[in-house]
Amino acid sequence: MSIIVQKFGGTSVGSEEKIINVANRVIEEKQRGNDVVVVVSAMGKTTDGLVKLASNITSHPSKREMDMLLSTGEQVTISLLAMALQQKGYDAVSYTGWQAGIVTEAVHSNARITEINTVKLKKSLNEGKIIVVAGFQGMTASGEITTLGRGGSDTTAVALAASLHAERCDIYTDVDGVYTSDPRYIENARKLTSVSYDEMLELANLGAGVLHPRAVEFAKNYQLPLEVRSSIEKVEGTLIEEEATMEQNLIVRGVAFENEITRMTVFGLKNAITGLSSIFTTLAKHHINVDIIIQSQTEKNCTNLSFSIHEHDLGQAISVLEDNKQTLGFTHIEHESGLAKVSIVGSGMISNPGVAAEMFEVLAEHDIIVKMVSTSEIKVSAVVDEQNMNKAAKVLHTAFDLDRVKVEQYSS
Amino acid sequence: MSIIVQKFGGTSVGSEEKIINVANRVIEEKQRGNDVVVVVSAMGKTTDGLVKLASNITSHPSKREMDMLLSTGEQVTISLLAMALQQKGYDAVSYTGWQAGIVTEAVHSNARITEINTVKLKKSLNEGKIIVVAGFQGMTASGEITTLGRGGSDTTAVALAASLHAERCDIYTDVDGVYTSDPRYIENARKLTSVSYDEMLELANLGAGVLHPRAVEFAKNYQLPLEVRSSIEKVEGTLIEEEATMEQNLIVRGVAFENEITRMTVFGLKNAITGLSSIFTTLAKHHINVDIIIQSQTEKNCTNLSFSIHEHDLGQAISVLEDNKQTLGFTHIEHESGLAKVSIVGSGMISNPGVAAEMFEVLAEHDIIVKMVSTSEIKVSAVVDEQNMNKAAKVLHTAFDLDRVKVEQYSS
Repeated sequence: MSIIVQKFGGTSVGSEEKIINVANRVIEEKQRGNDVVVVVSAMGKTTDGLVKLASNITSHPSKREMDMLLSTGEQVTISLLAMALQQKGYDAVSYTGWQAGIVTEAVHSNARITEINTVKLKKSLNEGKIIVVAGFQGMTASGEITTLGRGGSDTTAVALAASLHAERCDIYTDVDGVYTSDPRYIENARKLTSVSYDEMLELANLGAGVLHPRAVEFAKNYQLPLEVRSSIEKVEGTLIEEEATMEQNLIVRGVAFENEITRMTVFGLKNAITGLSSIFTTLAKHHINVDIIIQSQTEKNCTNLSFSIHEHDLGQAISVLEDNKQTLGFTHIEHESGLAKVSIVGSGMISNPGVAAEMFEVLAEHDIIVKMVSTSEIKVSAVVDEQNMNKAAKVLHTAFDLDRVKVEQYSS
Repeated sequence: MSIIVQKFGGTSVGSEEKIINVANRVIEEKQRGNDVVVVVSAMGKTTDGLVKLASNITSHPSKREMDMLLSTGEQVTISLLAMALQQKGYDAVSYTGWQAGIVTEAVHSNARITEINTVKLKKSLNEGKIIVVAGFQGMTASGEITTLGRGGSDTTAVALAASLHAERCDIYTDVDGVYTSDPRYIENARKLTSVSYDEMLELANLGAGVLHPRAVEFAKNYQLPLEVRSSIEKVEGTLIEEEATMEQNLIVRGVAFENEITRMTVFGLKNAITGLSSIFTTLAKHHINVDIIIQSQTEKNCTNLSFSIHEHDLGQAISVLEDNKQTLGFTHIEHESGLAKVSIVGSGMISNPGVAAEMFEVLAEHDIIVKMVSTSEIKVSAVVDEQNMNKAAKVLHTAFDLDRVKVEQYSS
């Protein structure tokens, strides 16, 4: 008998009716003859409500107590889903993170899973029970409740699937799969039948953050097939596995884009060796994420450095750098906001050196100026003016044949 | 350093403001140089809200899943109270029932505590921390979450106090102590400075069920002093301990009363030996509580049996008995509703045989007819017409000198 792990996010379990709907999806999988382990998040706005309660008590809650507080959210959902399954005549049992044997490091609010003791879960599966596990939470070796941070429930699902040697982990969400581009902006965007783990990681910001990169990494490490599916519509989703088995001929698998990007340039950096690391260490300390980095040496012992950040970090980035101007050793800073990043992603690129060139050609043909460039083995990103973002995405989507991707059925 | 256990019920922690207020009460005790362990219930209407959620899923939730669901209520409160204490600069740590080492029998929704592993708690106390424990919940030996049923948080507090050899367990509530009678009806009712465990058990229905009898029994078994105090006003409460140290001269310590009582009489019970137990076993099976029982043999092998029940059980009691008329072997049933029970309570009665006689004399003087009587070593109850209840309570309160009880300060 195969084990299937299903994960339903907060929107999918947002009300009692939706929980009953989830119970039906779980039962369908059970009726196919599989053992089912379900991982659920807190109901809809529950977490926000709990955060609000804490904020009325203190502006600086301890992370330990926040974990204690927030972990109640999923505990409510698991009990309700187990009840819904029992109401429909199925034997179900709910487990909190600690009951499910999910052991984490001793870090609050953002713990990593170190181990899963599956004894209890295997016993319940052998008894024919459907298991409902609280996502996002675990327990340290000394019995402290922890939470896993962003994407936590996805990670719980993937970790359980890996530990239980599940056949597949299905991530149910409010979109029905991974698309070649964001369908809200690119009308020809198509749903992909499959993508590789690496492509999924690069496409992470497509489909409104449908799957947390951390969970994808985890699945990749364990070579566990993931499927992104709709919790509402009964249609095939997108399978994420090592080799994209379909659409092998596609060099580019998707076009991703995001706006509100600012390019900052630090001029006259005196010590190129230590200066570079000092700048990024200083920014990281203040939780400012840096994306693309370009370094150019203009004169001997004098470097100019450009990097992109999110627009909302601009003010803090400037003040942090200016505050440390003496130590960091630069002459002045310039910045340009109103930029966007457009990326093409596909593992086929590795063996096709001309892809980046083709991308720039297409953009040039449409009078789109490229301001920064970054490449990886399976991705090329170009920073352009914000008003060119959609146009750039659209012409690239067409040029790389994504408008014609067929949504084929895969056989699992 | 002495350990004080404090318990705050749902009303006392009903909002963020109230939780901050509770934090202040906790800190006062800490500042007196004591180690403090605080037990809290779920916030105000939280439990009702959770029950509602479950009822929207199923009309017959499993007890296991209800325990899973309801135990989140106290978990929210403990984290918020710990945050409030930390916000005020105190080192505090919250523990769920299972984290606090509260082991129960493997029964859901109404488990009894079998053991408390205090290792973790003692370690935290040694580190100078204020401990906040979730009331009402525990864990079975196999790691299942259980709840303790009615009066559960009181029981948690008393059990923890007993295990930690606490000096005292303070029960904070919305009344400020135990009264000689219900102050809403008897204007001369006075707050008692102390009562014995047994008196408290008999007076349980005074002061709006201020303390669950189960917790009082527990405290009595461990000879643990309890104090009932107001969570709002800073006044002395009522101390419950083995020997009432004050007011020793008082024979009667309080007057309790309740209405909506029905007297049922079963006529012509043929088999007095098995018939009696059969009738009460049958009623118990249907969860009908019987209070006073009076048996009278009228003829040889033919017994009449009277007993009192709560009015709302009348319909069911009649149908249950009529359904089993053949087996139980009686001729017919009569009943009288609209009755009330008035009781005088006091451990001084044991050595004063004339107390019951004095009670009947006082009632007779005021033209109050007594319809049933029941006595224990420290209580005499009389069933009277409902319209005479308040009058009976008032005249007894005066006759037994309770109008003049002085509220003295006790020294703890």
